[in-house]
Amino acid sequence: MNGTTPAPFTADDHRDRMARAVRQAAEAGLAGLLVAPGPDLTWLTGYTPTAETERLTLLVLAPERDPVLVVPTLEAPDAERAPGAPALTLRDWTDGKDPYAATADLLDPAGRYGISDNTWALHLLGLQRALPGTSYASLTEALPMLRAVKDPAELALLAAAGAAADAVFEEIRTVTFAGRRESDVAADLAALLLRYGHSRVDFTIVAAGPNGADPHHEAGDRVIAHGDMVVLDFGGLKDGYGSDTSRTVHVGEPTDEERRVHDLVRAAQEAGFHAVRPGAACQDVDRAARAVIADAGHGEHFIHRTGHGIGVTTHEPPYMVEGEEQPLVPGMCFSVEPGVYLPGRFGVRIEDIVAVTGDGGRRLNNTTRDMVIVD
Amino acid sequence: MNGTTPAPFTADDHRDRMARAVRQAAEAGLAGLLVAPGPDLTWLTGYTPTAETERLTLLVLAPERDPVLVVPTLEAPDAERAPGAPALTLRDWTDGKDPYAATADLLDPAGRYGISDNTWALHLLGLQRALPGTSYASLTEALPMLRAVKDPAELALLAAAGAAADAVFEEIRTVTFAGRRESDVAADLAALLLRYGHSRVDFTIVAAGPNGADPHHEAGDRVIAHGDMVVLDFGGLKDGYGSDTSRTVHVGEPTDEERRVHDLVRAAQEAGFHAVRPGAACQDVDRAARAVIADAGHGEHFIHRTGHGIGVTTHEPPYMVEGEEQPLVPGMCFSVEPGVYLPGRFGVRIEDIVAVTGDGGRRLNNTTRDMVIVD
Repeated sequence: MNGTTPAPFTADDHRDRMARAVRQAAEAGLAGLLVAPGPDLTWLTGYTPTAETERLTLLVLAPERDPVLVVPTLEAPDAERAPGAPALTLRDWTDGKDPYAATADLLDPAGRYGISDNTWALHLLGLQRALPGTSYASLTEALPMLRAVKDPAELALLAAAGAAADAVFEEIRTVTFAGRRESDVAADLAALLLRYGHSRVDFTIVAAGPNGADPHHEAGDRVIAHGDMVVLDFGGLKDGYGSDTSRTVHVGEPTDEERRVHDLVRAAQEAGFHAVRPGAACQDVDRAARAVIADAGHGEHFIHRTGHGIGVTTHEPPYMVEGEEQPLVPGMCFSVEPGVYLPGRFGVRIEDIVAVTGDGGRRLNNTTRDMVIVD
Repeated sequence: MNGTTPAPFTADDHRDRMARAVRQAAEAGLAGLLVAPGPDLTWLTGYTPTAETERLTLLVLAPERDPVLVVPTLEAPDAERAPGAPALTLRDWTDGKDPYAATADLLDPAGRYGISDNTWALHLLGLQRALPGTSYASLTEALPMLRAVKDPAELALLAAAGAAADAVFEEIRTVTFAGRRESDVAADLAALLLRYGHSRVDFTIVAAGPNGADPHHEAGDRVIAHGDMVVLDFGGLKDGYGSDTSRTVHVGEPTDEERRVHDLVRAAQEAGFHAVRPGAACQDVDRAARAVIADAGHGEHFIHRTGHGIGVTTHEPPYMVEGEEQPLVPGMCFSVEPGVYLPGRFGVRIEDIVAVTGDGGRRLNNTTRDMVIVD
């Protein structure tokens, strides 16, 4: 039930990505990289197992050795069909055997390895036990920017996913909100994302009235009423790359205060967007958006970071957050999504995906950021 | 898009489960348990975050301390609504802060902790860095049987999920197979699982002809033909508990060989089932089923373990595999699913969920294990 359409990359693309990863690992002083199923493995090899389980699947990348994919025997046929398989040596292990022992001889017993963030603790502990002299750093910590800079083909896929999400917004603004449940509108969003080419729906937030003040409220039984502000935040994967956009709409005419808060968030989003340029730090984007909101006296109501990267996932480095000094590089792609949340009352969030260009930023979402009035 | 209907357990149920877990941890010589989002957290607290992300959410269980759930601030409102929340103290942390530092003072700096298998390596490494004197064992290794013995309410939910899966089989055997793609029949299975009360579909394997020889083949573009054996293996979650059943059907009349292999797997499944009794070892179930297949000369064609536990996931301990000496205990619940896979030709798998009773086993799947002929 993964449903991910593989992105159109070849074995050579995957060979290049793996070579680049090994090079970066060596430059970071690592003996190699260990990558479990998840977005890093998908990006490096094109292989996405049906499920992430207690059975070890692990890509071992090291200098002066061809990439090896350790897989459970019964999943080997699937792995052999992956786009990157021609660039890999498969090593399979059968149920009942110790997969960590089967992996240990591929590793330097005193090496320091980067390991994909979402590798299960079960597997990391198994490796630490099999090779007590090894040490590990999370891949995001060791090579935070490994997948962060997108190549032109990836940017094209992200732009297409963004355009599809925009088409979803243009349709959802025409449906009836008042008198329907949040979950009904969320179902509309999911169906529209699929209709516009997404293979996987990751989230369909519809947060009406006071629910909008909870940034992670999904969609519930609340019947949307005339006079509600409604935060819409939706996205998923299209051809293997992510979309993620938010708009806040209003059912009928807003009050002056609602309009003021919406204008404020819009100005903050604009400021965040204009802070995007090569060489600026990630935290500069957060600071630019946050300053606008803080200056208006709502600093305490902006309770999350300004953005996150997007690629083969809808949530990855780089993070636009205070303390993140990573400079922006052309090809990076991330959300700019400030919000103001007034507990018990309403919330506003406006979000575009932005790609760093040679001299600034390019929005991959282009629906209006004016407050849209819905029925 | 999690879609899991919470199981009908109360804060007191969750308080009891957490107390039991702490007791077992102490008996195992552990300073406590650390539980990230996933099935263990769902079982212990009823809390299932929308997504598992790089933001730390961690339940800290230790003797002589009330359970503490460390959560990102913006997810705190969701956590507060969890069924087990009244039995928890929430400690939230905001973006940009170090969540491991925020957790460290809850832990014994020299303690050994059980940590949920699927905790991200990112988080385990963060804890190891914050408290270099701590050590860790995976929860499955430390307390493999924590969730393995189901209480009567859980068994009732598993039986209901099994009955729903059986109803799905009774309908799918009446649909047309010949001339349709595997993926079409898989879509039928998914729709039927939802219609019969599942909230989440985990897998819908439809493996026709030679695809049946790959135990993990999902469902593809192959058009099912007259004369194909078709392995069906499907399940998901209903009211928070899992279903998982396999039957192998035949399009039109089978050959003698196909019938012979099907009868063999059926006999192996029967032998595995009859090996289920309190005090028998998990590996005895595997051995009983495997012996039947090996005696018939197909040992090399049974390339996976005989079964896996089921509960709030469709895949968990105990495992029916050679080397697993854990004795069976009434209330344990797992699959018995031998198979024979003839590369390039066809495969057969027959699977029931079986619950250990006071004196044997009880099948939670009860559709016919005769080979069903479909159109």
